[in-house]
Amino acid sequence: MSAVLESYAQGSWFTPSDEGTPLADANTGETVALFSRKGPDVSAMVEYARTVGGPAVRALTFHQRANLLKEVAKHLMGYKDEFYALSHRTGATARDTMVDVDGGFGTLFGFSSKGRRELPNSTVILDGPSEPLGKGGTFVAQHVYTSRPGVAVQINAFNFPVWGMLEKLAPAFIAGLPSIVKPAPQTAYLTAAVVRRIIESGLLPEGSLQLLSAGHEGLVDALGPQDILSFTGSAATGAILRNHPNVVSGGVQLNVEADSLNCSVLGPDVAVEDPEFDLYVKQVVTEMTVKAGQKCTAIRRILVPESMAGAVTEALTDRLSKIVVGAADQADTRMGPLVSLAQRDEVRRSVKALRTSCELVHGDLDQVEVAGADAESGAFMSPILLRAEAGAAEPHEVEAFGPVATVITYGSVAEAVELAARGRGSLVGSLVTRDEDVAREVVLGLAPWHGRILVLNREDAKESTGHGSPLPVLVHGGPGRAGGGEEMGGVRGVKHHMQRTAVQGTPDMLTAVTGQWTTGSRRSVGDVHPFRKNLAELRIGDTIESAERTVTRADIDHFAEFTGDTFYAHTDEEAAAANPLFGGVVAHGYLVVSLAAGLFVDPAPGPVLANFGVDHLRFLTPVKEGATIRVTLTAKQITPRTNAEYGEVRWDALVTDQDGEPVATYDVLTLVAKGEE
Amino acid sequence: MSAVLESYAQGSWFTPSDEGTPLADANTGETVALFSRKGPDVSAMVEYARTVGGPAVRALTFHQRANLLKEVAKHLMGYKDEFYALSHRTGATARDTMVDVDGGFGTLFGFSSKGRRELPNSTVILDGPSEPLGKGGTFVAQHVYTSRPGVAVQINAFNFPVWGMLEKLAPAFIAGLPSIVKPAPQTAYLTAAVVRRIIESGLLPEGSLQLLSAGHEGLVDALGPQDILSFTGSAATGAILRNHPNVVSGGVQLNVEADSLNCSVLGPDVAVEDPEFDLYVKQVVTEMTVKAGQKCTAIRRILVPESMAGAVTEALTDRLSKIVVGAADQADTRMGPLVSLAQRDEVRRSVKALRTSCELVHGDLDQVEVAGADAESGAFMSPILLRAEAGAAEPHEVEAFGPVATVITYGSVAEAVELAARGRGSLVGSLVTRDEDVAREVVLGLAPWHGRILVLNREDAKESTGHGSPLPVLVHGGPGRAGGGEEMGGVRGVKHHMQRTAVQGTPDMLTAVTGQWTTGSRRSVGDVHPFRKNLAELRIGDTIESAERTVTRADIDHFAEFTGDTFYAHTDEEAAAANPLFGGVVAHGYLVVSLAAGLFVDPAPGPVLANFGVDHLRFLTPVKEGATIRVTLTAKQITPRTNAEYGEVRWDALVTDQDGEPVATYDVLTLVAKGEE
Repeated sequence: MSAVLESYAQGSWFTPSDEGTPLADANTGETVALFSRKGPDVSAMVEYARTVGGPAVRALTFHQRANLLKEVAKHLMGYKDEFYALSHRTGATARDTMVDVDGGFGTLFGFSSKGRRELPNSTVILDGPSEPLGKGGTFVAQHVYTSRPGVAVQINAFNFPVWGMLEKLAPAFIAGLPSIVKPAPQTAYLTAAVVRRIIESGLLPEGSLQLLSAGHEGLVDALGPQDILSFTGSAATGAILRNHPNVVSGGVQLNVEADSLNCSVLGPDVAVEDPEFDLYVKQVVTEMTVKAGQKCTAIRRILVPESMAGAVTEALTDRLSKIVVGAADQADTRMGPLVSLAQRDEVRRSVKALRTSCELVHGDLDQVEVAGADAESGAFMSPILLRAEAGAAEPHEVEAFGPVATVITYGSVAEAVELAARGRGSLVGSLVTRDEDVAREVVLGLAPWHGRILVLNREDAKESTGHGSPLPVLVHGGPGRAGGGEEMGGVRGVKHHMQRTAVQGTPDMLTAVTGQWTTGSRRSVGDVHPFRKNLAELRIGDTIESAERTVTRADIDHFAEFTGDTFYAHTDEEAAAANPLFGGVVAHGYLVVSLAAGLFVDPAPGPVLANFGVDHLRFLTPVKEGATIRVTLTAKQITPRTNAEYGEVRWDALVTDQDGEPVATYDVLTLVAKGEE
Repeated sequence: MSAVLESYAQGSWFTPSDEGTPLADANTGETVALFSRKGPDVSAMVEYARTVGGPAVRALTFHQRANLLKEVAKHLMGYKDEFYALSHRTGATARDTMVDVDGGFGTLFGFSSKGRRELPNSTVILDGPSEPLGKGGTFVAQHVYTSRPGVAVQINAFNFPVWGMLEKLAPAFIAGLPSIVKPAPQTAYLTAAVVRRIIESGLLPEGSLQLLSAGHEGLVDALGPQDILSFTGSAATGAILRNHPNVVSGGVQLNVEADSLNCSVLGPDVAVEDPEFDLYVKQVVTEMTVKAGQKCTAIRRILVPESMAGAVTEALTDRLSKIVVGAADQADTRMGPLVSLAQRDEVRRSVKALRTSCELVHGDLDQVEVAGADAESGAFMSPILLRAEAGAAEPHEVEAFGPVATVITYGSVAEAVELAARGRGSLVGSLVTRDEDVAREVVLGLAPWHGRILVLNREDAKESTGHGSPLPVLVHGGPGRAGGGEEMGGVRGVKHHMQRTAVQGTPDMLTAVTGQWTTGSRRSVGDVHPFRKNLAELRIGDTIESAERTVTRADIDHFAEFTGDTFYAHTDEEAAAANPLFGGVVAHGYLVVSLAAGLFVDPAPGPVLANFGVDHLRFLTPVKEGATIRVTLTAKQITPRTNAEYGEVRWDALVTDQDGEPVATYDVLTLVAKGEE
């Protein structure tokens, strides 16, 4: 007898009081698990997340959170066989499972890496530079992102029970939010297995991850203005959530990622004999058959030049006829069953709707040859290729969420763009072309309608990750019908979970609030050269005020000769005088920063290991012969690396002349040893 | 007889067929204009914007659009007297009018400046660096923002008929969207006057600005997934718009900026004798009385330590009693009337609701002494100060949109944060303190609940722009009750109007699509040194491949001595060998970039006027003695300035060693003459 799926709520596993209803193996119809809609008290789960999970996550820095995600991914890698076996039962083939299970772990690694590389090792993200708001320098502003004291509720779709959970959990966690995961019933047993392994590991702070293996009744009712509801699924359910009073007027932030009628355009430059033709056909077949077409990003609309319709249709038919449909756990199966018989009925209904304006050119809606499984018991169906009549409306409106796509022809490139736009907003579009003008016109035409666009040709085919693959570093989501949301995109996805606020005040106040030195705030000049301080000793605002150096004409002449930089502004008095910006010979900018380094450096070995870069260098005032420069260097941002013996220190460098005028400003980047902690 | 307000639709002024209803002078009750709800065909306006206005705006670059906004602002400055006179009739005093009219023009200037400084002079914005997606370098991605082929519909509030229109119009216009402006009836005559002057000027492309002086029936019905609806007004109307089918499932992007119960916190560190005490009291009185409190950003909740409640209440009462209420056009009037008698009734109702848990400590709901006007005819009312009972709910829930605020006491700083959060999301909060620890705790506690936070004290008081003033460079909007939207924020507001898309392909394809050189794409090495080309001649991808130079130990020794940069890694073999990153003496990073400049520079006078900066310099591989370096410099981005004889060229610099390993990468920024166009 199968067990009823449990929820993980308020720190323990909850077993429903009723038996639940069976969740069937997509291949065999056998019961995999039982699912009850009656779950734990969702309001209590929300409250637990807010009061226990949230504070625990927010007590960690971004880097610490990112590291935990990497540890979780490593831990889960040890249970791949368990997840793979369950994945097959959802109808996922080996390849499909790679996308979901390995793709899910890859997403954790990806977010972990981006979080550590691109976020500070603290709890506040600065957005853009500070904005001076007054001439006197006493009033400035800084935009910051802070963590919400709320909960991230994630209502996932059935098709990616692992990836779908992890791609939402990862940015929420780095953003400081605890998550409540609500999987779709059909495949909830796989999500539950992964959550169980995560909970067992004890890696994530208690309360930061709860699982609701039940209906979501009452869940949105418990949410408020600091909570985020992320939903992946049908546009219809998305609309229901959008209409919820807590979304309409309760301030719940809702992110919807819905199915979309994604298109792939064959460029007008591609001939049958070009490698691009094969790439196009292969890509369409892949997108139709991976996950049996149950992908939000699958190609639904095959946009080809009129003259190519016959050749494309023929090539697709040829390839599709070779697709082996069979049990998901068989090695030679190319396409597994749909997730359930109900889903197959749904797809059949959609195909019937499409057929009002489309001709069936490949496949059979009612019959399919199945390898290694009983065609009657599993949710198998044949790939279906349709061809749209001229002016057909349905292919742009009806989504068959299965192995179904429609060939649509276009005349001009402009018409291709117009047809693509008839999908009213998609997650992803692709274009196969080698022609850069075609690429520019189509991509810029498609861009406002898409969250992602792939340009494929022989040059990138080998490395391309494909039309249908969202990547953790790229945004995933689309306007209009696709839900209007945006997920992932590396740090962008993290920021979507946070609140952006403009903070105004004195530079000192902004430094106190942000933990980063703000231009204009206090500088602390002490007896010890800051380069002699390790990370544990160094403080924001620690400053070197250098000695002075007069830049002589001989210095300039010599530097020109030594480096070979004999640009006339440094060497030719007459020509330099004619330059509208200089009006005479000026020192090289590189000379100025080189001399500045000579002024601020502390030569003996110490905690500062290297100067690994410079940012935002601007030469503000030309330095002429006889000018006397000095440099002020202030510790601006300190970023200890969590897993290394050193960290990064960003220094504000200000070079001034004898009149106190700023000559150059820049950030100096150094690696500094941690010291004792 | 007053005229019925006209709409500007499809290129001409539309006069309603009916008489309309009177809009009363807030001071006198006299009719200023007539307003008819029956306007032009809104579907046709939307279509006109999409087909005529949109393409015309998008044919311009960001800089051209930004320049036009500056021209519009300059033009409008010539009609200030006309606008001021109308503004007084809305009830706005001279100071209120400054905020609305001059503030509106300032917002145009602000967006114009940000647009030209921070956006490329093209039509596509790059978002972040390119993302390598494969090790072979053939597959990369770039996030871009593109303009939507839609329309921006702006439904404005009555309180800022000029600023409210312009702060929405400016970012939409720079983003490439035509606007349809729908003013609130009460003050629509002032908006209409400004629009008329803009249309008369002929500065903006026809179709890029239409005015709907009527009801908005049918307007949202005409919108689709490429359109943006921006609304400022009550939470109730915001909720109605959120429920519209075209928002729920039609993909219309909705941005709501609603009233909010903004708080101002008096820090626990402030004593009665501190200048901060006076600053706090003055600020509260200002925010209560400017625009007669009809400001989304006004202070509604006065959060003070328990021990200070008496002193603050007394000081506020004292100041409020000196406020001269009177006709808006009188010089000594400190507070004008509300916009209408209906609005006054509304405020009175709200105050009655507040009084269930608040005591009236200053003001009279029914009577007020009025200077220079008839108290019976105008919508005058007295400022009202309330004091909340312990645990009162109403002050956190009921917004009286007039000169009304409530004193609420707190015990600990944590309680102050909790009380602030009870507003369930606000546009702006402020804190008066000199204590940096208090600032950090309160600001970080308040931040997730606010779009903007001001920290005020004696240091920034003189330059502070005040609690209630949104600024074009800072985001304006707030979570939850405040609507959950975000406006302005400089370029952030522009991006909110655009679609972000991840484009994947070969580097060459990305270069073709974005118009900026993408790392890894083609470099074009010609006979002419690119520094000899002016902006008209230079092309993206034009490249210098330099000669080589071997870096000798003598070079390193000499550079150390010459610059004074005797850091041990450059001078002391033994110590350098012990450095974990170098393992021996290495050349200074500044030496490498100085020599690189010597290798790529073209010395004779020519179109390149100056190297004004360097970005993103990273030293990737240590350069040891005997290494031979060369540099490859490629034109990456070309930004002609619209109003100057030159522009900026950003060059990709790549320094490699004898093994082809990258030694340093950076962007070199130059000013280059335009040449003939």
